[in-house]
Amino acid sequence: MDKAELIKQINIKKSFLCLGLDTDLEKIPQHLKNENDPVFSFNKKLIDELNKIIIAIKINTAFYESRGSEGWVSLEKTIKYINSNYPEIFTIADAKRGDIGNTSDNYARAFFKNLNFDSITVSPYMGNDSIEPFLKYKDKHTILLSLTSNTGSDDFQFFKSGNNNLFEEVIVKSKNWQGSENLMYVVGATKSNYLKKIRKLVPDSFLLIPGVGAQGGNLKDTFINGANEEVGILINSSRSIIYAGNGLDFSKKSYLVAKSYQSEMEKLLNSKYDKL
Amino acid sequence: MDKAELIKQINIKKSFLCLGLDTDLEKIPQHLKNENDPVFSFNKKLIDELNKIIIAIKINTAFYESRGSEGWVSLEKTIKYINSNYPEIFTIADAKRGDIGNTSDNYARAFFKNLNFDSITVSPYMGNDSIEPFLKYKDKHTILLSLTSNTGSDDFQFFKSGNNNLFEEVIVKSKNWQGSENLMYVVGATKSNYLKKIRKLVPDSFLLIPGVGAQGGNLKDTFINGANEEVGILINSSRSIIYAGNGLDFSKKSYLVAKSYQSEMEKLLNSKYDKL
Repeated sequence: MDKAELIKQINIKKSFLCLGLDTDLEKIPQHLKNENDPVFSFNKKLIDELNKIIIAIKINTAFYESRGSEGWVSLEKTIKYINSNYPEIFTIADAKRGDIGNTSDNYARAFFKNLNFDSITVSPYMGNDSIEPFLKYKDKHTILLSLTSNTGSDDFQFFKSGNNNLFEEVIVKSKNWQGSENLMYVVGATKSNYLKKIRKLVPDSFLLIPGVGAQGGNLKDTFINGANEEVGILINSSRSIIYAGNGLDFSKKSYLVAKSYQSEMEKLLNSKYDKL
Repeated sequence: MDKAELIKQINIKKSFLCLGLDTDLEKIPQHLKNENDPVFSFNKKLIDELNKIIIAIKINTAFYESRGSEGWVSLEKTIKYINSNYPEIFTIADAKRGDIGNTSDNYARAFFKNLNFDSITVSPYMGNDSIEPFLKYKDKHTILLSLTSNTGSDDFQFFKSGNNNLFEEVIVKSKNWQGSENLMYVVGATKSNYLKKIRKLVPDSFLLIPGVGAQGGNLKDTFINGANEEVGILINSSRSIIYAGNGLDFSKKSYLVAKSYQSEMEKLLNSKYDKL
């Protein structure tokens, strides 16, 4: 999916909500556990229920890998189901990959070519040649970790050279990489006080913002500090949506939580347009 | 495997060679391609041939993920085969993982509990709480990226605060993390001039050193600068060993390359003991 289509979808759906499928077999409703592939059944039900109010789906690979090749099958079925039925949804492999060039080539092939995700999250630590294999794919998006939502982000992301923190250096340097027009950045919603600064560094890039919901980030502050003229933010929520219910009606409960986020997003978008 | 056993094996085998199974379906000998699982057949043959002269096996997950759930099956069969037949070999999941706590929990479960790897490589970017879920596993080892072998390592690993580079900060800070006795570090063989400095920071930790062979690192320099009293280094080579041959005798060709490394290691180890 190209960036123009993503922006178009945000305006149609009045939503910049990303559904995070961190699907844990132990946490899904009991009645699904007799299904052939309970994790896929759970995901499918949520996708069918929520597709009109979400703009993106983020699949957290760890929750699938922890079930080995079986989990990998659930992941394959889930992305295939989205691509076949809801091609208008922007898909994110939340994989935090990154390695030397010929290895990153393989990761890029796995997620962009074979699984046909629109985007993948990657870690910047190994630098330029660990990321460029992803950037060369046309209409695919590489989402670079900059400032993450967890407490450990203090350890190295605020490592300072002069007035420049590492998370800023990552953004500044990455803008010169070949294919950098395909970059997006991860900025945690718990760090909304830094969003303004980051937005100035990358006025035109999309930001993927996790941490609203279970991690405590605030939607309105995030929007005010992070949005640009084209909206330019995707706000992810995982646990607070997908585990909202636990009974036969679990997907309806999830819908209600997602809908409350989407309604707030619609208001924020309208207030933004009012000002224009 | 605990550290004492790893050191014991190094002394028995007179080797600190790690075999990197970056197995690419397109690069393996033609005659294996009709097998049920060509990648596993290739790996099995190499493991059977080389097990007496290698100390560790590193499985690069990208090469398996790029084949989806099928590739994941090859990975599962390979690690199971090693654990069942050669429990004296130290196993490394070269996965470069790392994410917020509950996600890293899942990665740790995937690689330590389910697949029963002895160790995994992880990226430090997200800090403390992204790594500690791995560190809490007893007799499992978490190999933190410090200074990598690729050219892109210049981008951020040499980001400097005062006299301190990021790759040094990673080591210094990680030593205070809970479970830090289970840490090892990745230091590229192409960076052997920095090895001495790193060895001073972590006199007792094992270093995993990739980059000998295809990437151009030098074995002797690496040993002189990186070894400690307990040897304390694992030197990985992947492509230069596994793709040494392409015919029916491919594993013999691989053996010869690995044996030349191991012989050099034996000499280096003997010269070290002579000096003691």
